[in-house]
Amino acid sequence: MNNRIYFDNAATTSLDKEVLDAMMPYLTTHFGNPSSIYSYGRETRLAVENARKAVAKILNAHPAEIFFTSGGTESSNTAITAAVRDLGCKHMITSPIEHHATMHTTEHLHDTGEAKLSLVKLLPNGHVDLENLEELLASITEKTLVTLLHANNEIGNILDIHVVGEICKKYNAIFHCDTVQTVGHYPFNLKETPVHFITSAGHKFHGPKGVGILYINEDVKIKPFINGGSQERNMRAGTENVYGIVGFAKALQMATDNYEKESTYIQELKKYMYDQLIAEIPGVRFHGDVLGNSLYTVLNVGFPKSEKSDMLLFNLDINNICVSGGSACTSGANQGSHVIKAVYPAEDTDSVRFSFSKENTKEEIDIVVEKLKEII
Amino acid sequence: MNNRIYFDNAATTSLDKEVLDAMMPYLTTHFGNPSSIYSYGRETRLAVENARKAVAKILNAHPAEIFFTSGGTESSNTAITAAVRDLGCKHMITSPIEHHATMHTTEHLHDTGEAKLSLVKLLPNGHVDLENLEELLASITEKTLVTLLHANNEIGNILDIHVVGEICKKYNAIFHCDTVQTVGHYPFNLKETPVHFITSAGHKFHGPKGVGILYINEDVKIKPFINGGSQERNMRAGTENVYGIVGFAKALQMATDNYEKESTYIQELKKYMYDQLIAEIPGVRFHGDVLGNSLYTVLNVGFPKSEKSDMLLFNLDINNICVSGGSACTSGANQGSHVIKAVYPAEDTDSVRFSFSKENTKEEIDIVVEKLKEII
Ligand SMILES: Cc1ncc(COP(=O)(O)O)c(C=O)c1O
Ligand SMILES: Cc1ncc(COP(=O)(O)O)c(C=O)c1O
Repeated sequence: MNNRIYFDNAATTSLDKEVLDAMMPYLTTHFGNPSSIYSYGRETRLAVENARKAVAKILNAHPAEIFFTSGGTESSNTAITAAVRDLGCKHMITSPIEHHATMHTTEHLHDTGEAKLSLVKLLPNGHVDLENLEELLASITEKTLVTLLHANNEIGNILDIHVVGEICKKYNAIFHCDTVQTVGHYPFNLKETPVHFITSAGHKFHGPKGVGILYINEDVKIKPFINGGSQERNMRAGTENVYGIVGFAKALQMATDNYEKESTYIQELKKYMYDQLIAEIPGVRFHGDVLGNSLYTVLNVGFPKSEKSDMLLFNLDINNICVSGGSACTSGANQGSHVIKAVYPAEDTDSVRFSFSKENTKEEIDIVVEKLKEII
Repeated sequence: MNNRIYFDNAATTSLDKEVLDAMMPYLTTHFGNPSSIYSYGRETRLAVENARKAVAKILNAHPAEIFFTSGGTESSNTAITAAVRDLGCKHMITSPIEHHATMHTTEHLHDTGEAKLSLVKLLPNGHVDLENLEELLASITEKTLVTLLHANNEIGNILDIHVVGEICKKYNAIFHCDTVQTVGHYPFNLKETPVHFITSAGHKFHGPKGVGILYINEDVKIKPFINGGSQERNMRAGTENVYGIVGFAKALQMATDNYEKESTYIQELKKYMYDQLIAEIPGVRFHGDVLGNSLYTVLNVGFPKSEKSDMLLFNLDINNICVSGGSACTSGANQGSHVIKAVYPAEDTDSVRFSFSKENTKEEIDIVVEKLKEII
């Protein structure tokens, strides 16, 4: 147990002790319903509204633009569906390497005939081809939703959200950016960012599972995705997950306070593993814009195929090393990654995503590289 | 703080200490993503699947019929929307006294033109008029969804789910029953119950907020409401709220184990308060089938209007007594209750919902009745 090495922080992270401490009062004595009018409910309502203000401040948004949801997936479903059903988008542009929350939601709206669907081209390193994006937007006459990942959860590539936002603005398109891998890992300044919707999930930065946010730019007015009570100012019905919301804000606060230190540290881990792999594993390859515009948390590696490499993930597992083939939500199925297939259709390697957090060390990387040498 | 009296358990309940204890490992060391393939993820996956099996066993359903969601509201949205979009229901029958999760979802689908909407009549005591339900079903030629509360969250009336289920069966209608106020408070035997969908929320029976279930009878096949990853066997995308799920199952287990004892105890509290109010407050009235087919947890009282009664809720609040006017999710707005208005349109009283749990006592009731005498 103790010698388990967890390199799958892009799938989920540990809940920080301090975050749990902040949640505890709401898991014990402060259980009132925040929508109740008596003071006991007002205590928890205050906790929810303070969390909203803290999150808004960190992202430099208005508190009225922050809505708490059950996670990144629900947030993306809400944004994409609203763009089509409430904002009049009859066309959606996305990429072939989106998270399934975007891919399956856009496909669903395409299947029901509610909107057309176009896929933007990719550059050889997996970045979105922005010229092609502009060509597509110029050729489409209907109102369009552009939905693209801020940072790809498998290969780590980061999109220039400002440049894409400006392109969308030029063509009067709605822009939804899946920022689940970047909120809590990078600074945001939403007042200066031309984007309509961004999303986040607490468990990606040492916060709780089952809670996320949707940022809705005050310029757009949508209807709720989940109907019912008047919670979240009529935008997201259902009794508030108070401890989740409190934990989300606390985790984001901690991530923000420690950003400089932690990002530098994790970036060094990534670079160290990169160097070690090049030195130790002949034929190793890297996916995405690995040393360029890329998440400091993610290193996606292609290992040369061998008899043993088939069992690579399995062999790492029995050595207590946690990594991922594709994204977590498909790795169970073990179908291979749609992202790697789209960017490297001809490549015949076994791809593994290593993803790091502040809790990892160089010693762990040494052990993992050693094991990889044995296995391959 | 200590002398706070909490009589709003139909809005939300305290999280049981033992439930929190069961959740703690998943809030600390066991944080792996249940969809990961390595053994660390398998630990949490096992926790989720064991929770599913436990819940299924208690409800006498098949584990494949139980889906974890973010709460009762999401569950109802999923069921109602799927009935219309996936199961071909072109007509919806509901009642005027449903929870907003049902009311606003059916209204939304009516507004989009996806299905027609009919309201079943009520009997004078607020029970659904089953003859009228059958008349409606007989007169509608299109496939129909019937969505009715098992127990009304404001007045406590309990529907005979078996009788309604048989009527629905006769007319080949889909039956969704909002059981949020009854799961964890009454025994269920779903294999013997003719219902397609039921819902539940953990925080109504001393479990965590932000987690619920949707039961989908194995005879119906629907599409997911939230699209994305392949979690919950492709039926509900998004990283699983592992601690919430574990807590839900534990709370349901405890509620089931202690059902006889606790329901008898709480029923006595309700009857005791009923008797005290009749003895002490002249002109007091009760809403719903108060001593008949009614939740043992809920007592809805109409107090004669007076100068002071306007401020009734406020006055109870400053005396540290937590009760509700309408349901929690509208009480903030203080618009009065759509349920009371529908069942008692001519009545001019101030209605207050008292709702009890195992944590309440007769002494608390004595204090509250004493205060009510002072106020009114
Ligand atoms: C880029 C990206 N988008 C969306 C999600 C979905 O978030 P969640 O699973 O918390 O709903 C994830 C993680 O699973 C992700 O990595
Ligand atoms: C009868 C009923 N249905 C549905 C709900 C919605 O549950 P939740 O708020 O947990 O989504 C509630 C409680 O708020 C309820 O009392």
